[in-house]
Amino acid sequence: MNKHGGYIGENPEMLDFSVNINPFGIPQGIKEKLIAGIDGLVSYPEITGKSAIQKLANDIAIGPENIILGNGAIELIYLFARSYRPAKALIIQPTFNEYERALKLYGWEVEHFILEEKKDFTIDPSKLLKAIEISQPQVVFCCNPNNPTGMVYSREFMTGLIEKSPQETMWFLDESFIGFTFEEDGLPLIKNGNHQVFLLRSLTKFYALPGLRIGYGVGSQAIVKAMETYKEPWTINTLGLIAAESVYDEKDFDKQTRDYIGRERQRVYNELKKIDVLKVFESETDFHLCRLIKGTVRDLQSYLETQGINIRTCEDFTGLNESYFRIAIKKEENNRQLLACLKEWRG
Amino acid sequence: MNKHGGYIGENPEMLDFSVNINPFGIPQGIKEKLIAGIDGLVSYPEITGKSAIQKLANDIAIGPENIILGNGAIELIYLFARSYRPAKALIIQPTFNEYERALKLYGWEVEHFILEEKKDFTIDPSKLLKAIEISQPQVVFCCNPNNPTGMVYSREFMTGLIEKSPQETMWFLDESFIGFTFEEDGLPLIKNGNHQVFLLRSLTKFYALPGLRIGYGVGSQAIVKAMETYKEPWTINTLGLIAAESVYDEKDFDKQTRDYIGRERQRVYNELKKIDVLKVFESETDFHLCRLIKGTVRDLQSYLETQGINIRTCEDFTGLNESYFRIAIKKEENNRQLLACLKEWRG
Repeated sequence: MNKHGGYIGENPEMLDFSVNINPFGIPQGIKEKLIAGIDGLVSYPEITGKSAIQKLANDIAIGPENIILGNGAIELIYLFARSYRPAKALIIQPTFNEYERALKLYGWEVEHFILEEKKDFTIDPSKLLKAIEISQPQVVFCCNPNNPTGMVYSREFMTGLIEKSPQETMWFLDESFIGFTFEEDGLPLIKNGNHQVFLLRSLTKFYALPGLRIGYGVGSQAIVKAMETYKEPWTINTLGLIAAESVYDEKDFDKQTRDYIGRERQRVYNELKKIDVLKVFESETDFHLCRLIKGTVRDLQSYLETQGINIRTCEDFTGLNESYFRIAIKKEENNRQLLACLKEWRG
Repeated sequence: MNKHGGYIGENPEMLDFSVNINPFGIPQGIKEKLIAGIDGLVSYPEITGKSAIQKLANDIAIGPENIILGNGAIELIYLFARSYRPAKALIIQPTFNEYERALKLYGWEVEHFILEEKKDFTIDPSKLLKAIEISQPQVVFCCNPNNPTGMVYSREFMTGLIEKSPQETMWFLDESFIGFTFEEDGLPLIKNGNHQVFLLRSLTKFYALPGLRIGYGVGSQAIVKAMETYKEPWTINTLGLIAAESVYDEKDFDKQTRDYIGRERQRVYNELKKIDVLKVFESETDFHLCRLIKGTVRDLQSYLETQGINIRTCEDFTGLNESYFRIAIKKEENNRQLLACLKEWRG
């Protein structure tokens, strides 16, 4: 099972920077709808959630036949892996390690295209296209914005890559963190009839609902249909469906979050740059990847724990090692606490 | 996808006899815990729900290594099917048709052992053992109490069957409706070290929480371990885990339900017996299977819909046909309404 931040049931007093959840918490309007929805738990949810799919389709202006709901985005990673005859996948690394686990579980051959720190984990398009030409993967996995590097690739950049790759190559683009950036998403690719792309969306992070398990995917009809064949029934609970029908009505919350995260990300970045025991990478989302130049992350983690702070160590990401850690953007006063501790630490 | 009762989102005013949910609704104590749990949705649930597993293990007096949680019992049917190399399965029919769908989706060969109406859908043990000897299935699927016949097989009967079957045959026993009977469950088989048995439990029906998706399985360590290998992470939402930790504290609710259902089932059965256009089968759980002797179920269904009543037609069950239907035991006044309509109907 995956090493992962975000469950600190043993010590809920901990200030948890290991999990990239919206610091504003659950939007009040959604919380009220969830409480009102408790009585409705006596009925079965719709098998595939078609009403919620229809609402989402209206919200993002695409056909319902292009949308599939998941019990969290994670269901759709595993469902994708078992909806196709296992072949070869290429994963752009370092990234969320559940893609690899899901693919290998269902017999896929997995190759890695590992981005280099010295290039700030950016993608060199000609190198990647060359790797695709040589490997001939059935599918390329790319997380955008990328977890854990925070790197975002623009719509124009991704479109160029996809258009230059072979027609038969599928692209699994995980946009779980797209809400926290100012960059544009990949939806137009699918709206324009591209057959190669599947976009993954989580509602967990942006709407602070990881306990509810709700995400969705948008793809060509062929991809969605292939996945529906293997989809298990009733995977999404009634409250998850309520959330899916409500989130895109929260326009003020969306704007408030995006503005705050954009501003606070820059402030935290500037402060992290001043700390000479670490190197921070530029991010376009709600967390920062850092590399420790002096001392070990294990020691740093132990020290921070004594200060009531939890971070995500990154030794289990392909392409990273025990000198990397990831920290979420939280509320300003919490970020100040973490920054003060990091400035104190001598390695 | 499965044809299924229980989702009547289009017309929530309907009196729904198609779904076998506890007529007392969600226990008040659990409802309060769920409302209090909404704020906790901002954190990830435990990946596999180990705290809830530990609590369930204490409640039913078995080791936590014998328990696996599911996103509804349904997750565990599909998980079982994809945790083993596909082989041959024997399904005792007529029964819940998701076993067959799950098995076939993952490449299993499925054979049916079809019980006969003229024997009141009882199992002839020597015939079944003979069928197992000839077919040599890797696993036998048996729902007990059985959906949709309502038939229950005693612990002694099941134990005898399992002990006489080959050691290498697994038994998948779905006890999703066991809470509504006075019969004893199959747990002692596993407590006594049997390696062949996996018991499936739903918390959906008895605790009226189908919207929440929560169930569990109990099996030998070998079976549970095999399933854990293929289990996807975070499939059970935070509120589902709260319910799993709470349900077995609801002793009064359990007793009240079992007593009521036992009494009301008998009363409804006696009334149904008096109606000469149908034959009712004896049930030990919270629903009755009926066969129409005159007229068609399609016509009956249309008539009942005009009376605001929904029933489960059974033409999609292997071994049944379009003359069968299933009705849940609901509150006494609702059952009286249905019975009055059935008595009115002339076929």
